[in-house]
Amino acid sequence: MPTIGVFDSGFGGLTVLRELLKVLPGVDYLYFGDTARLPYGSKSAHTVAKYAISSTHFLEQQGAEMLVIACNTATALALDDIRAASSVPVIGVVEPGAKRAAELSKTGKAAVIATEATIASHAYQKALAQHGIQATEKACPLLVPLVEEGWVEHPVTEQVAHIYIDEMFRNGGQGADVLVLGCTHYPLIRPLLRRVAPPQVQIVDSAESTANQVAQQVKNCATAKTGTLRCYATDSVEKFRRLGSRFLGREIENIELIDIEK
Amino acid sequence: MPTIGVFDSGFGGLTVLRELLKVLPGVDYLYFGDTARLPYGSKSAHTVAKYAISSTHFLEQQGAEMLVIACNTATALALDDIRAASSVPVIGVVEPGAKRAAELSKTGKAAVIATEATIASHAYQKALAQHGIQATEKACPLLVPLVEEGWVEHPVTEQVAHIYIDEMFRNGGQGADVLVLGCTHYPLIRPLLRRVAPPQVQIVDSAESTANQVAQQVKNCATAKTGTLRCYATDSVEKFRRLGSRFLGREIENIELIDIEK
Repeated sequence: MPTIGVFDSGFGGLTVLRELLKVLPGVDYLYFGDTARLPYGSKSAHTVAKYAISSTHFLEQQGAEMLVIACNTATALALDDIRAASSVPVIGVVEPGAKRAAELSKTGKAAVIATEATIASHAYQKALAQHGIQATEKACPLLVPLVEEGWVEHPVTEQVAHIYIDEMFRNGGQGADVLVLGCTHYPLIRPLLRRVAPPQVQIVDSAESTANQVAQQVKNCATAKTGTLRCYATDSVEKFRRLGSRFLGREIENIELIDIEK
Repeated sequence: MPTIGVFDSGFGGLTVLRELLKVLPGVDYLYFGDTARLPYGSKSAHTVAKYAISSTHFLEQQGAEMLVIACNTATALALDDIRAASSVPVIGVVEPGAKRAAELSKTGKAAVIATEATIASHAYQKALAQHGIQATEKACPLLVPLVEEGWVEHPVTEQVAHIYIDEMFRNGGQGADVLVLGCTHYPLIRPLLRRVAPPQVQIVDSAESTANQVAQQVKNCATAKTGTLRCYATDSVEKFRRLGSRFLGREIENIELIDIEK
């Protein structure tokens, strides 16, 4: 079973790791959060590609034999660049989410919410089009800071989600029967988004779909009995421990501070 | 008249530059926004100091003869480190804001709102204590993303500001008659904050106070007839132009993309 390197700009990718731990518990994981340079969601493709490649190189140096790009923005803007710069298999979060949405949709129409940079790249729209699905996309830049403030069941978050989602379903999103969560922070407000989205709409979580695809890909490998987890962060270990546990859903013990810009 | 280098993590410092242009229009300015690595407000002192020093070095190399640290977080966490690493005079935004608050307060009590990192450093509390003023501080992490979303006159922003400010004036802030805006984004929602804050409270904008202190410091220098402005950004020039003009209050022409991590 290969050592799996999971990369994200910060804490959000821990929701992907959480799903991976459900389907592949007996694996050695390395998690890298580029917390000094987060967030990627508001940055340019050039900058995101540069940061992502330096981070995934680090994971390969640490022994990662497969890379999961657990950051929607990095996947959307830089997956080809990361693949070209890597010597191990690389799986992003966009394609598994798009594939799952296509399996579920009956109307052939999907709605996608994500960061500003992911939406501007139209990565989901393109991936869904490959599966014959027409997509309406909406950037929701306030949802990440609201989740990080811990307001996951707060009336302000519900109001903001309503503004974004109502607007999307009014403008182009009519007929969509699937809502893709195209940002790793959004699973934390899934119950709230469930209330806000129209009732006939099914929710697809890219974190879940990606974990299933990874499991599929390594299903023929031998499984160890117990897996390990090591985390690396480029900023405060204390903050990583505190915020990270909310995303992972359990305490995080093994965190190391590293300087990627040396 | 010295060339003044203005440094910020992103666009917010343009509110300080805007005030500088009012009181010192005939000066050559260099503005540096470290937009690839923003925001600083949620990062550790170590990371903020490292980023700020590499950025101010760059401004000195470009000819800055005086540095204005127009970022509350960088001033709060790294002013001493920046001063130690610089060969020109360095002015931060915290002390001028604290001084102005002390001049205005009759009750000897002030309230301060700022980013998570600025509040955690207690830089304003310490600076105000030097002037005999007791401070209550409150981190308002959602206000920056709300301003950047352009929701400067939006009911959600008013509601969020109410939650933060009411909580502060209930818990420890009773009797404060001055509210210090300890983040460069907040001047953009000053009218909204005016409505939300108790009516007897006067608002102190650190951007304004800092510009006045810089003017004081260079008042004996000869003034040129016209000044110039050059801007440098570490991420998208297009985004700097678009967002920056909102903060500066006018169009920005001269922007150059630079790579500080080389």
